[in-house]
Amino acid sequence: MRLAELSRASGCPISTIKYYLREGLLPAGSEVNGTTAEYDESHVRRLTMVRVLREVGNLSVASVRDVLLAIDDPSLGLHDTLASAVHALGPHRDLPDREAIEPARSEVVAWLAASGWEVSPDAPSIDLLTLSLLGVRQFWGPAGPEIFDRYRDVADELGRGDLAQFDDVTDLEVTIGRMAVGTVVWEQALIALRRLAEENHSRRRFT
Amino acid sequence: MRLAELSRASGCPISTIKYYLREGLLPAGSEVNGTTAEYDESHVRRLTMVRVLREVGNLSVASVRDVLLAIDDPSLGLHDTLASAVHALGPHRDLPDREAIEPARSEVVAWLAASGWEVSPDAPSIDLLTLSLLGVRQFWGPAGPEIFDRYRDVADELGRGDLAQFDDVTDLEVTIGRMAVGTVVWEQALIALRRLAEENHSRRRFT
Repeated sequence: MRLAELSRASGCPISTIKYYLREGLLPAGSEVNGTTAEYDESHVRRLTMVRVLREVGNLSVASVRDVLLAIDDPSLGLHDTLASAVHALGPHRDLPDREAIEPARSEVVAWLAASGWEVSPDAPSIDLLTLSLLGVRQFWGPAGPEIFDRYRDVADELGRGDLAQFDDVTDLEVTIGRMAVGTVVWEQALIALRRLAEENHSRRRFT
Repeated sequence: MRLAELSRASGCPISTIKYYLREGLLPAGSEVNGTTAEYDESHVRRLTMVRVLREVGNLSVASVRDVLLAIDDPSLGLHDTLASAVHALGPHRDLPDREAIEPARSEVVAWLAASGWEVSPDAPSIDLLTLSLLGVRQFWGPAGPEIFDRYRDVADELGRGDLAQFDDVTDLEVTIGRMAVGTVVWEQALIALRRLAEENHSRRRFT
């Protein structure tokens, strides 16, 4: 198909497709002549993935590129693909002062290990969890990572259930797509549902 | 205290404090003379809140300002303060096409009502949940909001537990601060823990 048809099939404006081509989020089509290229169904699928990561996950172009690199690396097995895709999500933010947060980070790492979780010690999510702990301490007083025990158990159950759907891998491409996109899409649903739950329970208690 | 001391007490650089003063995130101190102002403990507490919302929650200055407006409005009761603060978190993003997502949004609203949740029909989180549902449909096939049932039940439990701590309100300022900051800080912890749980369970299944 030509560019105009790719735009119709994917629901992406032509200008956006051209932007994604320039940024390397979408592989070039096969050249027909100097000004025309031919695209196929793999381009439609890739565009769908990019759109969902951008529109639902609100990911930056750089993060989307990192997720796609993880998905496209044939040397990675299923686990490393998922771990790389999750790490690519970030968070990409400057830590206020890496040295100052190091003691709290070590506490978080030890608590995760004591919980029986095996995760990369350099997972960006550990930074985020450490920042959260420091934030909690400002408002709840001195606290160790154990203050997150209830949240840890809930996350553990969600992770177990989410991964269970991949037990029967029949189509590797579908599986990898769901893994990479699923982390983002279901996370946003969880954020939205928790905020709504807080509003609902607040209404019941305080009005 | 003077500006330099406020900086030491809060851990915020002077340039950042001046920026927050200009942006209205921090009330002006009481003027001592044309170039000097006096600050007090309320400024330290407010700076701590702004820092946590910015550094942990990664909120924009505009979102922080909206959260603070909700906290500072004496006409709001506890519930409306929490609801306004949660709504101020956003998400602040352009919906791809509001008219196109309306049918899916109506399904989400009906499902929340059927779940017994009472929430504002214009809560930004409903938009986010609708975007998530549309993203899920791209990769999991046709699905109604019921696909989120498991996540809804988890969020419901978290919300119930989170609000239970506010049953004995003794210090209103502390309570409101924890409510506003807590939504952000605990949400980031939940995101981090879920990503780590996915990595942990993926390792167990696939390696």
